[in-house]
Amino acid sequence: MTPGDWGLLQPVTAGTRETAGDDQVLAAMVQVEAALLRAWARVDGTDDDAAALALDAVAANPSDLDRDTLVAGVARDGAGVAALLELLQDHLEQREIPAARLHTGATSQDVLDSALMQVARTTFEHLRARLVTVGAALAVLADADRDAPRVGRTLGRNAAPTTLGVQVAGWLDGISSAVATVDRTRFPVQLGGAVGTGEQADRAADRPGAITVLRSALAEELGLDDPGRSWHTDRSPVLSVATAAATVTAALGRIGRDLLTGSREGVDEVALAGGGASSAMPHKRNPVDPIVMSAAALQAPGLLSTVTRTAVSSDERPAGEWHAEWSPLRDLVRLAGGSADAAARTVAGLTLDRESAARNLRVAGVGPADDVTLAACGAVVDAAIARFRSTLDGGPT
Amino acid sequence: MTPGDWGLLQPVTAGTRETAGDDQVLAAMVQVEAALLRAWARVDGTDDDAAALALDAVAANPSDLDRDTLVAGVARDGAGVAALLELLQDHLEQREIPAARLHTGATSQDVLDSALMQVARTTFEHLRARLVTVGAALAVLADADRDAPRVGRTLGRNAAPTTLGVQVAGWLDGISSAVATVDRTRFPVQLGGAVGTGEQADRAADRPGAITVLRSALAEELGLDDPGRSWHTDRSPVLSVATAAATVTAALGRIGRDLLTGSREGVDEVALAGGGASSAMPHKRNPVDPIVMSAAALQAPGLLSTVTRTAVSSDERPAGEWHAEWSPLRDLVRLAGGSADAAARTVAGLTLDRESAARNLRVAGVGPADDVTLAACGAVVDAAIARFRSTLDGGPT
Amino acid sequence: MTPGDWGLLQPVTAGTRETAGDDQVLAAMVQVEAALLRAWARVDGTDDDAAALALDAVAANPSDLDRDTLVAGVARDGAGVAALLELLQDHLEQREIPAARLHTGATSQDVLDSALMQVARTTFEHLRARLVTVGAALAVLADADRDAPRVGRTLGRNAAPTTLGVQVAGWLDGISSAVATVDRTRFPVQLGGAVGTGEQADRAADRPGAITVLRSALAEELGLDDPGRSWHTDRSPVLSVATAAATVTAALGRIGRDLLTGSREGVDEVALAGGGASSAMPHKRNPVDPIVMSAAALQAPGLLSTVTRTAVSSDERPAGEWHAEWSPLRDLVRLAGGSADAAARTVAGLTLDRESAARNLRVAGVGPADDVTLAACGAVVDAAIARFRSTLDGGPT
Amino acid sequence: MTPGDWGLLQPVTAGTRETAGDDQVLAAMVQVEAALLRAWARVDGTDDDAAALALDAVAANPSDLDRDTLVAGVARDGAGVAALLELLQDHLEQREIPAARLHTGATSQDVLDSALMQVARTTFEHLRARLVTVGAALAVLADADRDAPRVGRTLGRNAAPTTLGVQVAGWLDGISSAVATVDRTRFPVQLGGAVGTGEQADRAADRPGAITVLRSALAEELGLDDPGRSWHTDRSPVLSVATAAATVTAALGRIGRDLLTGSREGVDEVALAGGGASSAMPHKRNPVDPIVMSAAALQAPGLLSTVTRTAVSSDERPAGEWHAEWSPLRDLVRLAGGSADAAARTVAGLTLDRESAARNLRVAGVGPADDVTLAACGAVVDAAIARFRSTLDGGPT
Repeated sequence: MTPGDWGLLQPVTAGTRETAGDDQVLAAMVQVEAALLRAWARVDGTDDDAAALALDAVAANPSDLDRDTLVAGVARDGAGVAALLELLQDHLEQREIPAARLHTGATSQDVLDSALMQVARTTFEHLRARLVTVGAALAVLADADRDAPRVGRTLGRNAAPTTLGVQVAGWLDGISSAVATVDRTRFPVQLGGAVGTGEQADRAADRPGAITVLRSALAEELGLDDPGRSWHTDRSPVLSVATAAATVTAALGRIGRDLLTGSREGVDEVALAGGGASSAMPHKRNPVDPIVMSAAALQAPGLLSTVTRTAVSSDERPAGEWHAEWSPLRDLVRLAGGSADAAARTVAGLTLDRESAARNLRVAGVGPADDVTLAACGAVVDAAIARFRSTLDGGPT
Repeated sequence: MTPGDWGLLQPVTAGTRETAGDDQVLAAMVQVEAALLRAWARVDGTDDDAAALALDAVAANPSDLDRDTLVAGVARDGAGVAALLELLQDHLEQREIPAARLHTGATSQDVLDSALMQVARTTFEHLRARLVTVGAALAVLADADRDAPRVGRTLGRNAAPTTLGVQVAGWLDGISSAVATVDRTRFPVQLGGAVGTGEQADRAADRPGAITVLRSALAEELGLDDPGRSWHTDRSPVLSVATAAATVTAALGRIGRDLLTGSREGVDEVALAGGGASSAMPHKRNPVDPIVMSAAALQAPGLLSTVTRTAVSSDERPAGEWHAEWSPLRDLVRLAGGSADAAARTVAGLTLDRESAARNLRVAGVGPADDVTLAACGAVVDAAIARFRSTLDGGPT
Repeated sequence: MTPGDWGLLQPVTAGTRETAGDDQVLAAMVQVEAALLRAWARVDGTDDDAAALALDAVAANPSDLDRDTLVAGVARDGAGVAALLELLQDHLEQREIPAARLHTGATSQDVLDSALMQVARTTFEHLRARLVTVGAALAVLADADRDAPRVGRTLGRNAAPTTLGVQVAGWLDGISSAVATVDRTRFPVQLGGAVGTGEQADRAADRPGAITVLRSALAEELGLDDPGRSWHTDRSPVLSVATAAATVTAALGRIGRDLLTGSREGVDEVALAGGGASSAMPHKRNPVDPIVMSAAALQAPGLLSTVTRTAVSSDERPAGEWHAEWSPLRDLVRLAGGSADAAARTVAGLTLDRESAARNLRVAGVGPADDVTLAACGAVVDAAIARFRSTLDGGPT
Repeated sequence: MTPGDWGLLQPVTAGTRETAGDDQVLAAMVQVEAALLRAWARVDGTDDDAAALALDAVAANPSDLDRDTLVAGVARDGAGVAALLELLQDHLEQREIPAARLHTGATSQDVLDSALMQVARTTFEHLRARLVTVGAALAVLADADRDAPRVGRTLGRNAAPTTLGVQVAGWLDGISSAVATVDRTRFPVQLGGAVGTGEQADRAADRPGAITVLRSALAEELGLDDPGRSWHTDRSPVLSVATAAATVTAALGRIGRDLLTGSREGVDEVALAGGGASSAMPHKRNPVDPIVMSAAALQAPGLLSTVTRTAVSSDERPAGEWHAEWSPLRDLVRLAGGSADAAARTVAGLTLDRESAARNLRVAGVGPADDVTLAACGAVVDAAIARFRSTLDGGPT
């Protein structure tokens, strides 16, 4: 019986564990060590190219690394980096590949923090693309139904006329806000050595300031941002990634909830394609994607509270806060990614029902959508579409 | 590359994924289906014994079930039950084993809720044993150092004399409270059918009230409590398990924090055995078990907040809240179990340093521990030990 | 401009700040000091009766205490106890009332913890009465509509037939669970002195074990439980109160959500009396009480996460965790109380619409509620009512 | 007995309830109504100047407004806006002051959202100034002790040499990150009318697009940002304020924790001025400000989780989520403000002890701080100071 979680209890990320699973984080950790070798070559000319290439190969197949050793290492050391290093050293020694600068100047936190940032960045690239897809589809829908009358509902009651287009424009506004938040997010490399001063790097290079050059080179090798400092105990970069992920789940969760309400029988303003099977009721088609979007938004707040709490660091590396941060941070990123996947699927199959919306407004008894209403609604739609486009161009939001 | 999480980012549960991993939950789901067949035999004599035995065999090797089908099923349906059922039906059909009552009267939620309760109960049995071990060891330590003077510290400042024994007695008090909370926790079976009324069971048995007998029999087969009702939308049993798990992590987290403080160089009142390796500083021995206990306590609050929020159900089964509950509930249980494992390890290697404690009190300048102090401290130790014993006997706490 | 919060932003507790506002906590703190004097009289015969009576009078009008001094004291000391004590001493000295044992044996935490427990107990008594009222009303409704067909909805979709009575029985089940949780909650007195050993009490009484008698007497005077120990750093009693409050808000929040869904125009299975005004739409009646019940359940999880985190104590009194616990603990208790008030109001004016429910089932196309359905539904209703009655009698739940 | 909270249980904000108490929010609500009158004058020339001036006067003394009516209004309507409007109308009518455009085009949410944004902005201005003060003081300290050897501690253990200056530089880095986050935060005005389309404003002005001009004018009158849309159901602006406030509390909480650890007797690397009284131990001086900073950081995560959850909106205004957001949002802002006040106080009285730090490094046995160490440490300090200055100039961080 293989220990481990393969997604049985997490439908949100069921389809997307490939991008941020433990093996992907492990691969990223190996890539950080490889990139560090290459960065050293740029700092002091040490030629560990063969070792870097060998590590690239390991990173391509992280499940080849001895799993039992790693699992035992996590339990023994509280983090998997030391055990991974032993495995990598063995790997290189067996092949008689020199690696003079392996892990030089780095500490466990440098490897793990950088690897998590890399996984986060990759997942964010993926989810940003999904958000753009979702936004583009919503822009088309909003425009098409800009003048399709619908009853607006506030506090659970029929309130006043609006249009289907305005509702979709509201979802689009959330997407624009989410994209803007994602675009503001930075993914800095981590490098500071034992207690964050960079002393080990300077000493190895026999040159003051070597750490600054090394960090910059490492950032470039990994495609991460160069923060110009180590942030071992200033967790604001982590908090920034976490809040961006939570913002994405909230924007999508709201769409999910509105889709669930709008597609309820008797409301019928929204029709969803597809749907999941029920084990007890063969006739039923469950709105799985909106459920998943809603479930992601329900799980994110608790995880964000953990990361906000573990951002309160201490000493030069805290005993517990750092360790407690990894899993909720990764889960937040993954929930955001999984929710974006679900949103892209569901929006692709989404149709709005003008007849049902018009009927619901008629029976609501809150008056018709007249010319003034429709002009106002059209302006809301136009503004939302313009804001989405401006957001994609990096403009003001 | 196998998708999935094998524990890289979760040192707390690194050693204990065997008891509550996805495969264990999957096995429990199969066991629920097997137990349901046996329960039906008791209700209406249907002989599905061969099928039940075949399912037992499947449950013993859950990783033999086609993983891709299950992963796809979770994504498609939002829950793995329907896909599992198809696999089990295929399995039985291929072997020409009849299973007339397979899943009869049940819905997905019945299977998953019952399975999670079973996994929680198993983990709680395990962690209760660990808590008793920890408590017994603390009782010995508290008794031995009941009169070893030490400075009590409040709000981060030296405050007044106490003894090492009293500090340990305080940890023991937390263990007693945690055991009492664990002992109050119930693990009810879930069975209600499509919308919780039990109608499908009654109809299959052609007898009003069959659901009540069936549920009772199912509870007995699984060793779970019979709640006399379905609790599809009353999540108080889940909330009860979750709060108990969080209470355990808090009690252990406090011990972990005190061990970290007490073993800091310069304080030296506590000595820990073992310790984990550092990738940058070979001389260092990191206090991994107290770190893990602290990290568990840092993660539990956020997960508990999620389960408290998802306990707000709606309709006859909510769209999202139920799905968002599984993973944090299981994680909470697992964090409590992993923290108890760490506590058992660390307490086994724990020694107190009477000399350092006495020295710290001397330099504190808050006065000596005189006879009145020592008598008061001894009474605190006695009370804590007596309370621990009473708790084990199920007495008042 | 008076600083302070009088409820503008908290509609949940808008009507109930009288039971657990700052003045009520302050009054409880004074009562603890008065009760301590009376407890001392029982321990060693010290006659501080006049002082105790004078403090009773102060407690009856807590707003007479100099507010500015108290506010400044909270800022200066991090807790209001020291400043309050100075005010009380001045009060007694000005009146030449001796108080030999004032605060003797106690520390700030003893006073504040005991006062918060007293306020919690009072609020819980109040909310338990409200829960019983709500449960009794629901039992009548469930019984009356036990056979009124309705469509059960799962995952946001029409699923299978049930009855109005079963839905109400589900709400009642939540109330029973909440009452059982409330009834299990203990409200222990706190008394341990400077570092929790009780030494100061023993020394003042010149008798080993005096603390035990004093604590027991204090508990009796205040009507709180005698825990037989101090629990300065074992916060499980606080966690227990907090989780009970959160459980209440979840049970009521679920009713609130179902009322909001059921009373939506087009569903119309539930009719609510009353309703609040809208500033923009004079025709609208907002379902304020269900909104308030929902809002309470949305706020409780975050507050519970804080109290779960602050339950991780350290040293003999932690620097921050204790201070961070007071406000969220009180708010949780108050949200539960306010939600119970809203539930009592809304259930009193609740009517179910058999015609709408029947129509919704007809158009759902999931089949009729036949005799088997109705028998199953009736059994669910009977079980829920029986469980509610058993809960009130303290029976198994 | 006045109901209400005046700060007894919240030492963090004890001194700062004046900036964001209920009366300040109420005043801001009145200011929004006054600004709306002035905005209308710019849109269509309606002269409500006298009314606007009269409302200014009301806003200057919000406690003159009938408190009982407002409290009852909050309970009746779930929000205080409708009751406030009645009071304002009465006020103007009694004085025979015309107010043709009072509340025209607005709904309750417009008034409350805008008022909370204004209170948040004011508090953020205040706390940013405090952060700058703190950062400037830390920059001086870091520079002065850039080469004062100290032992770096990781995972609760002595690890490697660093300097006092580097520790302070780490705190400064957190301040820079916090200031950058604060500076990115936007405070948009809210204006959308009944269901967010702006139709009521267009209709009143008898002109399409009037809402856009009106909103822009309103933003200018209030000194808030013009978002170019209503964000009734896109709560990302709220989430942004909330996460910024939580980021501030985390940065300051970390400083608070390090100050608590560094000033423990036996460590003595940090000396704090002042300190609070203990009710049981007259000799003690409690480190109140660092405690308060720590307590703020412990409370923020739970509140942020609530605001993240309530950001999942629905319909055109959700039933509960909106109501549940006000109090935690305001509390987050206030905790950040109160923590910044405490930080400014504590940093002003902070001295570092080079002798103790040097002694602690000597006994740690992890080697001395040699020239390489000191050069590396100096570079860290320089980088942190440069980054702080760049942040104040709005440069890259």
